[in-house]
Amino acid sequence: MKIEIQLIPSPPGDQTLSKKVVVVMDVLRATSVMVHALSQGALEIVPVATVEEAFQKAGTFPEGTTLLGGERNSRKIEGFDLGNSPREYISEKVSGKRLILTTTNGTRAFHFVSSGEKVLVGSFLNIGAVARRCLDLDKDLLLFPSGDGGNFSLEDTVCGGMLIDQIASEREGVELTDASRAARLLYQRFKGNLLEALYLSCHGKDLVAKGFEADLSFCVQPDIIGIVPMFQNGLIRSH
Amino acid sequence: MKIEIQLIPSPPGDQTLSKKVVVVMDVLRATSVMVHALSQGALEIVPVATVEEAFQKAGTFPEGTTLLGGERNSRKIEGFDLGNSPREYISEKVSGKRLILTTTNGTRAFHFVSSGEKVLVGSFLNIGAVARRCLDLDKDLLLFPSGDGGNFSLEDTVCGGMLIDQIASEREGVELTDASRAARLLYQRFKGNLLEALYLSCHGKDLVAKGFEADLSFCVQPDIIGIVPMFQNGLIRSH
Repeated sequence: MKIEIQLIPSPPGDQTLSKKVVVVMDVLRATSVMVHALSQGALEIVPVATVEEAFQKAGTFPEGTTLLGGERNSRKIEGFDLGNSPREYISEKVSGKRLILTTTNGTRAFHFVSSGEKVLVGSFLNIGAVARRCLDLDKDLLLFPSGDGGNFSLEDTVCGGMLIDQIASEREGVELTDASRAARLLYQRFKGNLLEALYLSCHGKDLVAKGFEADLSFCVQPDIIGIVPMFQNGLIRSH
Repeated sequence: MKIEIQLIPSPPGDQTLSKKVVVVMDVLRATSVMVHALSQGALEIVPVATVEEAFQKAGTFPEGTTLLGGERNSRKIEGFDLGNSPREYISEKVSGKRLILTTTNGTRAFHFVSSGEKVLVGSFLNIGAVARRCLDLDKDLLLFPSGDGGNFSLEDTVCGGMLIDQIASEREGVELTDASRAARLLYQRFKGNLLEALYLSCHGKDLVAKGFEADLSFCVQPDIIGIVPMFQNGLIRSH
């Protein structure tokens, strides 16, 4: 098993992507929202690129079955039901509902890697479950941190490094690239205090400045959720 | 002063590059060769993309003034005077000569960033001198690791991280991105044993397998050379 991590979010241009398992990570906050919402009973998630597309998509489903969620510039979008804070996505609100989600980095990432053999949704919240699924599938992996506006993101890379660390500790002979080795080393640097990585990151600082500090503590909790959502045919579902 | 590092070598697409100081690093081994050769009295270096271009260029200079150097697949090119081992570039051979150099990653990198306000040549060998020059110039910086076949390179990123560490320790208020912060953390991980990073890297392993292990120990020596070569009008010179 070979593990690669794409440190800069752009279309992979990898001819063998269709034979790989891809794990998308947007710790702050899209994939944390997805994992938490589905664990709280949301039916499925439809990631879309634009606000217009979100409203249009919502119109195609029966009234009352759908919630609109997401952010622009980290804040809730006007006319939307929910923002991009995973703490909002609790069963009282989301259970049995379809979520249409548009976020700056996360939803775009899924479109970049949609040709992967399987596309999994990773976060600190479900990291152990994702690691076990990757070990079970036993395919070459491409980890895909969603990044921050097209740039390298510290928190997503540390999350990717944690996944690499868990898989490589469990399975002998896992092949790492320089990038996946670097991600693992970065994770090991923050192992004792993952929250520190989120506070150091540009996106973390921006969220703190905008009043979303509590999301950092929430999103950094490893292994509190045991589901592994999958992106398939434009939808994210946990089973 | 803001310090960015481009973790994946590709054309920067940075509209403000012409106002930035760029530092190109190809620790294994192009920029180590350049820095060492110029410190040993080489007149100037002409980086070219192809072997054909190297021979053609050599023909435009008077006989006996020029040496051909470089590698393909890490090995010396047929008909060339020198390979890509910095240890070959000693004054007895290179003093007073013009070097035409073609390497896989290093020479391409210079073409990617040629629009920088200044383009400096960095390596562990001259890291302190490069840090001082960057501090003197006091401009925003783009560090450009040459990478390994278009991929992230651990050794170049650690070298970039060392440069960031030296500059940020010296000057207050230096602004880092997530990427430059990560590079600095990776450097700090290997601070006590830089050679370990080179042995861990894919390119380092490949060089060891091909019999160039001594180059790793040579290229990792920090601060043994005090010059800062600059790329300008297609030439690399130290003054």
